[in-house]
Amino acid sequence: MVQNTQRDQRRAADFVKRYNPPRIFGDFKWKHVVTVEQFERADLDILFKVATSLRRRVASHDPDVSQLARGYLMASLFFEASTRTDLSFQAAMRRLGGEVITPSGGVQFSSVYKGENLADTVRAAACYADVIALRHPERGASYEAAYYLDTLRGRITRQTVVLSGGDGIGEHPTQALLDLFTILDQKQSLDNLTITLVGDLKHGRTVHSLAKLIARFENARTRVNLVSPESLKMPREIVAYLNVRKVATIETDRLTDVIGKTDVIYWTRVQEERFENPTEYDAIADAFIMTPDLLAQAQDDAILMHPLPRKHEMGTPSDHDLLDEDTRSVYFAQMENGMFVRMALLALVLGLEV
Amino acid sequence: MVQNTQRDQRRAADFVKRYNPPRIFGDFKWKHVVTVEQFERADLDILFKVATSLRRRVASHDPDVSQLARGYLMASLFFEASTRTDLSFQAAMRRLGGEVITPSGGVQFSSVYKGENLADTVRAAACYADVIALRHPERGASYEAAYYLDTLRGRITRQTVVLSGGDGIGEHPTQALLDLFTILDQKQSLDNLTITLVGDLKHGRTVHSLAKLIARFENARTRVNLVSPESLKMPREIVAYLNVRKVATIETDRLTDVIGKTDVIYWTRVQEERFENPTEYDAIADAFIMTPDLLAQAQDDAILMHPLPRKHEMGTPSDHDLLDEDTRSVYFAQMENGMFVRMALLALVLGLEV
Amino acid sequence: MVQNTQRDQRRAADFVKRYNPPRIFGDFKWKHVVTVEQFERADLDILFKVATSLRRRVASHDPDVSQLARGYLMASLFFEASTRTDLSFQAAMRRLGGEVITPSGGVQFSSVYKGENLADTVRAAACYADVIALRHPERGASYEAAYYLDTLRGRITRQTVVLSGGDGIGEHPTQALLDLFTILDQKQSLDNLTITLVGDLKHGRTVHSLAKLIARFENARTRVNLVSPESLKMPREIVAYLNVRKVATIETDRLTDVIGKTDVIYWTRVQEERFENPTEYDAIADAFIMTPDLLAQAQDDAILMHPLPRKHEMGTPSDHDLLDEDTRSVYFAQMENGMFVRMALLALVLGLEV
Repeated sequence: MVQNTQRDQRRAADFVKRYNPPRIFGDFKWKHVVTVEQFERADLDILFKVATSLRRRVASHDPDVSQLARGYLMASLFFEASTRTDLSFQAAMRRLGGEVITPSGGVQFSSVYKGENLADTVRAAACYADVIALRHPERGASYEAAYYLDTLRGRITRQTVVLSGGDGIGEHPTQALLDLFTILDQKQSLDNLTITLVGDLKHGRTVHSLAKLIARFENARTRVNLVSPESLKMPREIVAYLNVRKVATIETDRLTDVIGKTDVIYWTRVQEERFENPTEYDAIADAFIMTPDLLAQAQDDAILMHPLPRKHEMGTPSDHDLLDEDTRSVYFAQMENGMFVRMALLALVLGLEV
Repeated sequence: MVQNTQRDQRRAADFVKRYNPPRIFGDFKWKHVVTVEQFERADLDILFKVATSLRRRVASHDPDVSQLARGYLMASLFFEASTRTDLSFQAAMRRLGGEVITPSGGVQFSSVYKGENLADTVRAAACYADVIALRHPERGASYEAAYYLDTLRGRITRQTVVLSGGDGIGEHPTQALLDLFTILDQKQSLDNLTITLVGDLKHGRTVHSLAKLIARFENARTRVNLVSPESLKMPREIVAYLNVRKVATIETDRLTDVIGKTDVIYWTRVQEERFENPTEYDAIADAFIMTPDLLAQAQDDAILMHPLPRKHEMGTPSDHDLLDEDTRSVYFAQMENGMFVRMALLALVLGLEV
Repeated sequence: MVQNTQRDQRRAADFVKRYNPPRIFGDFKWKHVVTVEQFERADLDILFKVATSLRRRVASHDPDVSQLARGYLMASLFFEASTRTDLSFQAAMRRLGGEVITPSGGVQFSSVYKGENLADTVRAAACYADVIALRHPERGASYEAAYYLDTLRGRITRQTVVLSGGDGIGEHPTQALLDLFTILDQKQSLDNLTITLVGDLKHGRTVHSLAKLIARFENARTRVNLVSPESLKMPREIVAYLNVRKVATIETDRLTDVIGKTDVIYWTRVQEERFENPTEYDAIADAFIMTPDLLAQAQDDAILMHPLPRKHEMGTPSDHDLLDEDTRSVYFAQMENGMFVRMALLALVLGLEV
């Protein structure tokens, strides 16, 4: 088959090596965002300051906010479902006064499914839009998109950047950014904080990226507890990455040992679709379930985070209701912060006057 | 299965009792709208006055209209298809200058279908949008949404209301509001009017809600003819509701007895998906078919309404063409009025200066 | 079945005869656009002048552009996937400051699929929107839409026009307009130009429409080479249409005879879904493949066009990469021009001050 041949020849994962993402170094304008590695500590400060300011202005219905991105267009290309990331990016662009285009009926109904490749699809979107929010099931897809968008320079009248909304088991940079923003927002700083990451730390790209961002704060004396079943431990290179940057880590499969001495509890969802082995999935699905009883063991000023959506790793619907009432649960604020962080990122990448 | 358990434990229909919708009493601001029971006669007057004003301003392309909702966002969550309600809500928000977000590819492609429950989905949308237009196949879904949206108070920086776009065999309040608006618009008042409701009056939530609204006009001496096959009669409680409020009713299965003495003919579509019993469906599908010959028996100043879409309950496409040419057919104006009534509702609920 | 009967009784193709599209004659305002036959040479001049002006203003981020269509709504109804046309129409409307509504989840999820006919669906959209972008798999669908939209006059408070985004094997007028715009933009005029159309000239509605537009330039001494396999030749009536208007044509199945003496090479995609006979499809699929080696035979100042998406008629992904680097390849600029031409068409049809 001709199409299969094409797919064999150009693999998204190859572009992780082939494409070198630009460092931000204080200047976001027209830079693709595909990995948290692009951000220095100072870049995070800039981003979060803008996000905080925009949050305040949205809350007070400042009419100037909805004029900032006037005349700019974002194309939303979601090759797999991700309601929160999708709605949050759309809301971010629209609250800035920009516009959003998306294939009617979703990309799954579009020409992509008639055999077109990613390189051509993102360049089609780039002919119409100024920024592309891309979600894709294959690792490296956002790198591939960035690579091919750069080939358009000088061929059309405008330029277009891609913001990754997550690519397979690869990266999900904006999720990690909003997670870190929420921790700093709730706890003011990372100094002397104990952060406990719980669940599938092997496949969870969110916790991988978050760990890398925490390591940006080298002198904060942050401690990170890594709680998972033995078979789903955090990859060695991430642990090493943390340790080299003076972040102390403890690895354990016993949550009760650490939950009482933790400032931030980061619960993760288990994404069945990321598992190649169903036995591994079953192991984790039953091992760590957050319940009101468990949360009762946490410190009074601890915060409970979760990237959502949640399934039974947070118990039954009745458990959900009880957890939601607990003031330590900040996952709704975390979700809302996602919009403000993405607004800030869009504003900086488009070079808007914020 | 874990998900099935979850679904068993939290049933949308339970929230019809558990959630008490706020009465409008002249103040629409930030109130959920899930049932026509929330509206007093005076509330209808306010709503329809605003709708009439907005209709005039849209017709004259008043540029200020498209500034009213600037900076506000509506999330459109349609868990079942309803082209008219969907497009009409979107158009309403956008003509006011507000923005709309909706899951790319529709909610059927979204995380909801991976097992997330309604309570979490509407709260996710609420983290990004100011108002949610919700269509759902289960009765009580909009009550459940309202209930859970209220749990977000104080947890995020903003608040969000839900407007029901119909929930299963439950309510479809905005349809009833636009229907009543159209009758008042065409006939000036309900005084001494004879209104004939025809078709499946058993399952037709639209005619249930409309009947309740007609009953708000207690001293109008309105008469309501209820025409249906014996097996698909209007529920007893609705007939009682009308009679208690001094609306005279006649129940019959012979349309020809009443069509010639009717000011308003309200034809209904038969929704096959609402029937549990296919025999009942077949009975109604063939029993009442509006044709040009039948319309010829109506008064010269009668009006023919239909919520649309229509199928063969309005005959063949050639019949459609002939009916459409008849000046008594007002269903296109009725459909357009839906946009203006929803604009008015959005404006009032968001507290805009109209 | 009742629905089948309905479909039998009203066929889109019949409306090609039944509906007479209005000639533009210098006045685009509120005219449906369903065929290139509506355009005189002078109309093309007006349209392209506006497109050029809007392209310049978008490039310079002129803030007034995004105010032009304020308060106007476009409904996007795509009954078959066409990512480029879809995104391009949406982007065009939004860059003008207008708004877009589209059925959540796509029309394939909408009431249309519950048996509603096109006449009623487009009139529903017309009750909410000012302009409809329609893509449909059946020839004549845009004619049918135009016909029924006209029946709404006087029945609702506004009027609505349809712009065809392609209907089956029928017409795709905006594609032909953007193709001609690109040729004129790249080559300044058609005078003495040799244009080579390559591929499936039998089914390719794009090349049919483009040929008709080229024939509008009667005194330009343009030459058109028609290169296709014997079984997929340009229809006789189109060749006659060209010859009558003094456009010289050569028909051949040997590209190498003409490629070195050509100013414009228009490569076409082969749309498998348009073929009734799979043997015909296989013949063309392998016969004409554009590769870097083949392009090397073209003149230095030739341009290579393609409506995109492309499959293997432009070789492997590696071939794509090499072709893309060649400065003669203008298909990305061509794609971007689609947005500017559609912006111009929308602006003129809505009577905006451009």
